[in-house]
Amino acid sequence: MANNKDIYIELANRIYDLDGEVYKCVGSSLGRTFTGSRENTIRALSMLMYTKPDGHLLRSELALISNMARTIKNKEDKSRMMTEYNEILKAMEQLPDMSATDIVNAERMALNPAAHWDEVDENAHLVICISRTQGSAGNDIGFELADKLHINYYDSEIFEQVLKRQEEEKFHIKEKECFTEFDKYGKKRETLKSKLRNMYRYHGLNREDAVFFNMSDLICNLARTEDCIIVGRCADIILRNNYIPHISLFISAPFEVRLHYMMNVREMDQKTAVKFLKKMDRQHKKYYEFYTSEKWGTPENYDLCINSANYGIKETIEIIERLIINRKKA
Amino acid sequence: MANNKDIYIELANRIYDLDGEVYKCVGSSLGRTFTGSRENTIRALSMLMYTKPDGHLLRSELALISNMARTIKNKEDKSRMMTEYNEILKAMEQLPDMSATDIVNAERMALNPAAHWDEVDENAHLVICISRTQGSAGNDIGFELADKLHINYYDSEIFEQVLKRQEEEKFHIKEKECFTEFDKYGKKRETLKSKLRNMYRYHGLNREDAVFFNMSDLICNLARTEDCIIVGRCADIILRNNYIPHISLFISAPFEVRLHYMMNVREMDQKTAVKFLKKMDRQHKKYYEFYTSEKWGTPENYDLCINSANYGIKETIEIIERLIINRKKA
Repeated sequence: MANNKDIYIELANRIYDLDGEVYKCVGSSLGRTFTGSRENTIRALSMLMYTKPDGHLLRSELALISNMARTIKNKEDKSRMMTEYNEILKAMEQLPDMSATDIVNAERMALNPAAHWDEVDENAHLVICISRTQGSAGNDIGFELADKLHINYYDSEIFEQVLKRQEEEKFHIKEKECFTEFDKYGKKRETLKSKLRNMYRYHGLNREDAVFFNMSDLICNLARTEDCIIVGRCADIILRNNYIPHISLFISAPFEVRLHYMMNVREMDQKTAVKFLKKMDRQHKKYYEFYTSEKWGTPENYDLCINSANYGIKETIEIIERLIINRKKA
Repeated sequence: MANNKDIYIELANRIYDLDGEVYKCVGSSLGRTFTGSRENTIRALSMLMYTKPDGHLLRSELALISNMARTIKNKEDKSRMMTEYNEILKAMEQLPDMSATDIVNAERMALNPAAHWDEVDENAHLVICISRTQGSAGNDIGFELADKLHINYYDSEIFEQVLKRQEEEKFHIKEKECFTEFDKYGKKRETLKSKLRNMYRYHGLNREDAVFFNMSDLICNLARTEDCIIVGRCADIILRNNYIPHISLFISAPFEVRLHYMMNVREMDQKTAVKFLKKMDRQHKKYYEFYTSEKWGTPENYDLCINSANYGIKETIEIIERLIINRKKA
């Protein structure tokens, strides 16, 4: 401990001297960073090194000195100051407990291929889960990104179709023609007969819950077998709960921008679009929170949240590409 | 219009044929994407092209076909199918109103150097504003990033010191020694006398508001004259309101991870750390919402939100570097 204290004091002296020298070179109107006596300053600085609680204050002091040093006009002086500054930083990192403590969600990081490919199972696939708000162009971004990366794209409509087919297969529906004639672009009607049949099919679960569980299986199977982009359906939470590596993104944009977008894309008048957007936001929130018990659209729930309106579709795609730039080549 | 309709029908036929051919090659157990008769399908598909409202359904159909096509084992067949698929996509983009409508917050994009460097004023500086939750290592990330980019770093402690000095300069405080002896690591006390003096100084504003306005000036001046990283102080909103280009980031992490981090870094026991974090979150929220009238920590308010716990400090810094990789060189 005594040894460390000596090191603290030596470093504090170097910091105090650097401040003085930088001030001499730059002549800032604001004066030196340390305005007190050498003795008092050394005592304060070594306390900052010694007591981690105020470690960030020490960082601010150093930043003030280096900010000033960067304005030194004489190149030689500047380089000399910056060298000493960097050496002080390095010496501080060597101090016990002085290097920045990392912030780590170990479980999630082991499943986040965008962070550390080397830690992720080498057979893992590139699976990008995109949650998004209605009208933020999240689907367009997912579709175009999949096309650019030559990987498969899935969204809720696709899942619904695939599930419907699997179901038909599973139950060996004889009236194949009935399905063939099924109008998938029309409105859905549910008769009492189909309701009862569904009750039997889904082991007593209501249809929505049964669909969710089948969807979860489907999503896990996909993520285990191929590179793909999955838009919506709480895919990120499903994969996280099943310990399957994936990248989780949330794409959104301010309400007014989404409103404008909806009015354009769907040719809605303003009143209808406002109503529609609010309804969809409510539904997304409800669905997500019901099946995941997590808060929808909160930055802590995703790896990365992107405001698509601040980039446009093309740049948002490029940002995601840059994000996965470290990806291990197959 | 009649002409367009012919194009729709021709494209619908090509899509229908592609589906049939892909199915022949891959023999999916799920059958073709289009299970209805050619006539009905063509009608449905051209309707989808004609009525933008369901444009996303068409995209899902195409994705289903291409997902299947990518599984074709015979290389020649696969390449032929994918070529036709890409040509159909291209032809669709040529259709009036069929290309994806972009989502754009024009005002913000013109000030977002990470999106379109070429559209941002060429004299603009690289200014990165970082908002963060307590315990997400946002300050560490900002500090190390500044060091890596060789640009200046500012946080609230630094601003406070700079402002205090400017104030002293401004009011030609004669008792310079008094300031020199000022214990900046100690507790602050405010006497009635200093309160009255502040009232006079700040033109009737309370000290907090006066500090905020002075801070705003300082932040705008910095952003106009140098590359820098600014942590906290609603810098993003201040710069946005003053039409000064900048990148706005929000760094956060799940509460439990931040808790763990605080207990480590500040050597707090769990109870104290929970209380401290909750208090800081409340304060951050209150400060941000009071001065900006915006909701704190909502993805729509920032360019990018990063969950530092899913990357760790080092990788978070690298992500930000990758974000600004297209930066115009000075």
